[in-house]
Amino acid sequence: SIDGQRLWDSLMAMAEIGPTANGGSCRLALTEEDAAGRRLLLDWCESLGCTWRVDRIGNLFIRRAGKRDDLDPVAMGSHLDTQPKGGRFDGILGVLAGLEVFRTLADQDIVTERPLELVVWTNEEGSRFAPAMVASGTYAGAFSVESTLAREDRDGVTFGEALDACGYAGESPVGEPRLDSFFELHIEQGPVLEEEHETIGVVTGVQGMRWFDVTLSGQSAHAGPTPMRYRRDALAAAARLIDRLQTHALADESGDTKVTCGCLDIVSASRNVVPGEVTLTIDLRHVVESELDALQERFERLLVEVGESFGVTVSQERIWASPVVEFAPECVAAVERATRERAQPHRRMMSGAGHDAVYVSRVAPTAMIFVPCRDGISHNEAEYATPEHCAAGAQVLCDAIVERANR
Amino acid sequence: SIDGQRLWDSLMAMAEIGPTANGGSCRLALTEEDAAGRRLLLDWCESLGCTWRVDRIGNLFIRRAGKRDDLDPVAMGSHLDTQPKGGRFDGILGVLAGLEVFRTLADQDIVTERPLELVVWTNEEGSRFAPAMVASGTYAGAFSVESTLAREDRDGVTFGEALDACGYAGESPVGEPRLDSFFELHIEQGPVLEEEHETIGVVTGVQGMRWFDVTLSGQSAHAGPTPMRYRRDALAAAARLIDRLQTHALADESGDTKVTCGCLDIVSASRNVVPGEVTLTIDLRHVVESELDALQERFERLLVEVGESFGVTVSQERIWASPVVEFAPECVAAVERATRERAQPHRRMMSGAGHDAVYVSRVAPTAMIFVPCRDGISHNEAEYATPEHCAAGAQVLCDAIVERANR
Ligand SMILES: NC(=O)NCCC(=O)O
Ligand SMILES: NC(=O)NCCC(=O)O
Repeated sequence: SIDGQRLWDSLMAMAEIGPTANGGSCRLALTEEDAAGRRLLLDWCESLGCTWRVDRIGNLFIRRAGKRDDLDPVAMGSHLDTQPKGGRFDGILGVLAGLEVFRTLADQDIVTERPLELVVWTNEEGSRFAPAMVASGTYAGAFSVESTLAREDRDGVTFGEALDACGYAGESPVGEPRLDSFFELHIEQGPVLEEEHETIGVVTGVQGMRWFDVTLSGQSAHAGPTPMRYRRDALAAAARLIDRLQTHALADESGDTKVTCGCLDIVSASRNVVPGEVTLTIDLRHVVESELDALQERFERLLVEVGESFGVTVSQERIWASPVVEFAPECVAAVERATRERAQPHRRMMSGAGHDAVYVSRVAPTAMIFVPCRDGISHNEAEYATPEHCAAGAQVLCDAIVERANR
Repeated sequence: SIDGQRLWDSLMAMAEIGPTANGGSCRLALTEEDAAGRRLLLDWCESLGCTWRVDRIGNLFIRRAGKRDDLDPVAMGSHLDTQPKGGRFDGILGVLAGLEVFRTLADQDIVTERPLELVVWTNEEGSRFAPAMVASGTYAGAFSVESTLAREDRDGVTFGEALDACGYAGESPVGEPRLDSFFELHIEQGPVLEEEHETIGVVTGVQGMRWFDVTLSGQSAHAGPTPMRYRRDALAAAARLIDRLQTHALADESGDTKVTCGCLDIVSASRNVVPGEVTLTIDLRHVVESELDALQERFERLLVEVGESFGVTVSQERIWASPVVEFAPECVAAVERATRERAQPHRRMMSGAGHDAVYVSRVAPTAMIFVPCRDGISHNEAEYATPEHCAAGAQVLCDAIVERANR
């Protein structure tokens, strides 16, 4: 069995690097803090006799030797970077649970058949370098190494420059080592497990996501003398779009349709001016690709309709699309077996958020394990998972990894 | 008859003071530009033999003597200050049409029974010192002189300091001179006259206005893993509120119900985060006070309803209320007579916007005259009124003033 207290202590020790005022963490990708976090992890792993290498985009592969080192390793991991005001668990739990697996095996002098690999993916959050999950995406071939190295943060510093500066520009080719399989433990970042009093989410895949930038252009006008029927109110059109999309998504009793408008800006807003131009973002998600297609069509139709209703010109651009991911059945089954054997209350579920596992699943059999987080809150200093839940997740990870490495 | 070309030339000359890149004007209240505009007007008026005085808050009263200078003067005027990117007509037309009345009377050696007074009210726009119409409001007793002098602009400069610096701090007590009556010519700032091919709006009053600051507080959450039914989406609630208010206002076939949401901000907005907190402004207007009461009640009820529907806490504060104004029937009748005699296509109408006449009407019989402005646009460099419409408005002003001063 893994040591839940030891896992908790390592989580709290990592949180000392880049602490924020309200108990969260700030370790933006490829900063000094990110490097210090990696260094702490490497110190711990080196003391266990592990070896490591870094690829050209900073992905860190920490190896625990097996009996058959000619075979591809069974891998686990996640990310150590955080949001600017992030929590202590998002990503970090998946990495430090991997460390706990190594420590547990060392305590018990267990050597697995296949080698094990603990992976720290660079810049998962996407808050320093957009998009999110860019380095696991590059590993999996979704982005070129050159384009990733050239991405710039808000200050114009490139990914490549930041990588050099923080000392984690490696030599190892991107895409190596090949992995036998990959397991990622993560907090759910949603409320379902907590509400349903379940400890483990056996993650069978990741819902599809599509991001849109929308512009509505009407005519700004004085709020006082302009009769309603003469107006071309861009915000009124936007409000109806949002309301119609909400109503549609809420009517889906399966709960699988998700629609979010996260950003909305009125150009030159003023209290007594009818808004002439509004920009907004739309995030559409669904667990079934064809349903996501239908959702996108409905969104596009509604956008045209509200434009016509309010005399407003509309345009939209799809800036990102991540297809529905189905994880490898054998990896999901390994997670489920471990969960049952530990008698943990659990459910099969799709991940609502993107994770490094999304891209890794393109090149290796993959699965994920979720544990509850308080009030479903993440990307927030208040993010919290209990020591018991962290330990339960790490135990399932350990069991699934060992089973897989010894098969 | 007034000289339309001379009026136009003076409008264009005034627009040379504080010109903006796209053909508009920037003469913020109590700046050097405002002072230069006043000086130009005074030069013109002094050459006609007018006298003038300034009150303690910078309101400028320019007098053309009558036969009976013991009687209260018949007054006209508006404001010379502009929005930061304002137009050449909003306010200015009402002042320079008054100048044109003086010039026309001088050309024809006419001396009226009562004296005439051309008034330039300080800081009508409210864009340097909030609120709008503050100096005519102080003249009429709605605000104390001390509170007006203490109002600060965004840089912390007080009204009083700015008044001293620009040289228009006068000695004359606020509230003097008493006026026999007041007539304000203004561009409509809306589309009705243009759409209906009418030249003159005979303004019978000003609709009531109420301003609200609204806050909706739900819970921010990750857009991906948070099912719709668990969300407390502050923006979804705001969108439904706006849509319901729009639908209500549009359903009023009289066109008298006006609802505007001009500002809306999402706190810590992010594309993949369900908005946790939204602030917005609501501007409600109606020409009938009891209907405005009912509109406010409906708004308050809808706000509570959308809060309940979306699990969002709501609060609102009414920050300004201007009751419905009915102008003096005898002044409105004078305007209407002049309009008919000049055979101008016209309509009786309520003003949708607030003007200095709103406050002046509390202490003197008042009326307003509107002329069309292109596309109803104002508070914008593109604001435009034709020379013909400006001249028609000035002629009606002249006729009404002379009739009133000789009655
Ligand atoms: N885990 C996470 O926040 N991923 C970012 C992409 C998403 O919005 O799902
Ligand atoms: N004329 C004008 O813009 N007044 C400001 C107050 C209002 O919004 O009506």
